[in-house]
Amino acid sequence: MLRSCVARLRVLGAPPARRPGPVWRLFSSEKVIRKDYGLPNPSWSKDLRLLFDQFMKKCEDGSWKRLPSYRQNPTQILKDFQTRFVDPSFTKEEQMSKAQQFSRSFEEGLGFEYVMFYNKVEKRTVCLFQAGLHLQGVPGYVHGGAIATIVDITTGMCALAEGIAMTANLNIDYKKPIPLCSVVVVNCQISKTEGRKLFVSCSIQSVDEKTLHTEATVLPFLSFPPLHLYLPPSSPSSLYLL
Amino acid sequence: MLRSCVARLRVLGAPPARRPGPVWRLFSSEKVIRKDYGLPNPSWSKDLRLLFDQFMKKCEDGSWKRLPSYRQNPTQILKDFQTRFVDPSFTKEEQMSKAQQFSRSFEEGLGFEYVMFYNKVEKRTVCLFQAGLHLQGVPGYVHGGAIATIVDITTGMCALAEGIAMTANLNIDYKKPIPLCSVVVVNCQISKTEGRKLFVSCSIQSVDEKTLHTEATVLPFLSFPPLHLYLPPSSPSSLYLL
Repeated sequence: MLRSCVARLRVLGAPPARRPGPVWRLFSSEKVIRKDYGLPNPSWSKDLRLLFDQFMKKCEDGSWKRLPSYRQNPTQILKDFQTRFVDPSFTKEEQMSKAQQFSRSFEEGLGFEYVMFYNKVEKRTVCLFQAGLHLQGVPGYVHGGAIATIVDITTGMCALAEGIAMTANLNIDYKKPIPLCSVVVVNCQISKTEGRKLFVSCSIQSVDEKTLHTEATVLPFLSFPPLHLYLPPSSPSSLYLL
Repeated sequence: MLRSCVARLRVLGAPPARRPGPVWRLFSSEKVIRKDYGLPNPSWSKDLRLLFDQFMKKCEDGSWKRLPSYRQNPTQILKDFQTRFVDPSFTKEEQMSKAQQFSRSFEEGLGFEYVMFYNKVEKRTVCLFQAGLHLQGVPGYVHGGAIATIVDITTGMCALAEGIAMTANLNIDYKKPIPLCSVVVVNCQISKTEGRKLFVSCSIQSVDEKTLHTEATVLPFLSFPPLHLYLPPSSPSSLYLL
């Protein structure tokens, strides 16, 4: 499926650019009004803030990049995406403009609070994740579906430099439940590439690394060449990733 | 993990009853004020209502049962659950009372709209699922994490008559994306039992059965004997299932 495209399109802030002409106007006008959810807010716990600061320091030498995150796709990107890749019969444009990115559709602090960092050389993405009270599965713990969601999102980002990928398979071993409101570290890395197939391994650990909560393997399938091949090096969007 | 317990505890409306004495008072007083989310609301589309009516007819001869669904666990059940099964260090009671079941924590129509039906003889659960606009992944389609969530919930219900199960593994093949706001049918069945291990197969199809969106296998691990062994046949909760 195409689920990892969204996040990437959001990150890049530009359509996949077979006709890149109108793209840059779009990005520069829209970034002003869009809230970046990958930045600290009052609901973030001390643990999450500390980890965030640590990773921001790692970003200083350019080895890591923080990935911004948005709730909605810019309208033009959405249209462009639909025109190019989506069933043309699915054109309820007005309705679609009200759609929200699943993992960002909660009130502050109640759902998925997370920030991701990307290391291009290591082909690795780290997600610092704090699970809000509306992600409950068994009393006191995070729902397995919410865990699958954060795994899917993080692995999607991991394939970022390779191209637009669609998740074909998600295989998750739930080892230890994750307490609600706790912070965990999601670590994803491309372990192998076979043509357009990627193999991404993923783990979720406690902040002190003593507890392995989840292990997963994800198989994204590359559908398009890397986006950065289309983006001029000076475009604002490419600064995040390349 | 323990994620499928919640739903089941909610359904049964009673704690897992090693000391069933105070349970029935609890159920009778609490069911009055708790909203059952497995009933039609104005956001349900014609497709969902039609399917709901079809399955309600199947319920008339007792072969199928509609499973009620709640947003929060009764406080007493929550306490009881924590006392029995959960890390005793995790006791932020006040905070936990504000927690919400992940799949029911959205505003009406924007998140997971679903109802489940259970067939004891066939060991099968069917979930009629309408995906709201806040479950978006790639523009216009349902997020892979939201799909994983509905798979996890439905397979959890499938293990219902066998006992309280914890999902150990979730393996999902995403075949065709699910359009936002469409209705799909999730079909789960226990394919094999090996001691305390269950093997549940799951598929998600379009209403006309022409499109196979998703296939999954789930491995819930039974942690306790079947709940109905503890419940007197006349208890209101057992009427739903047994």
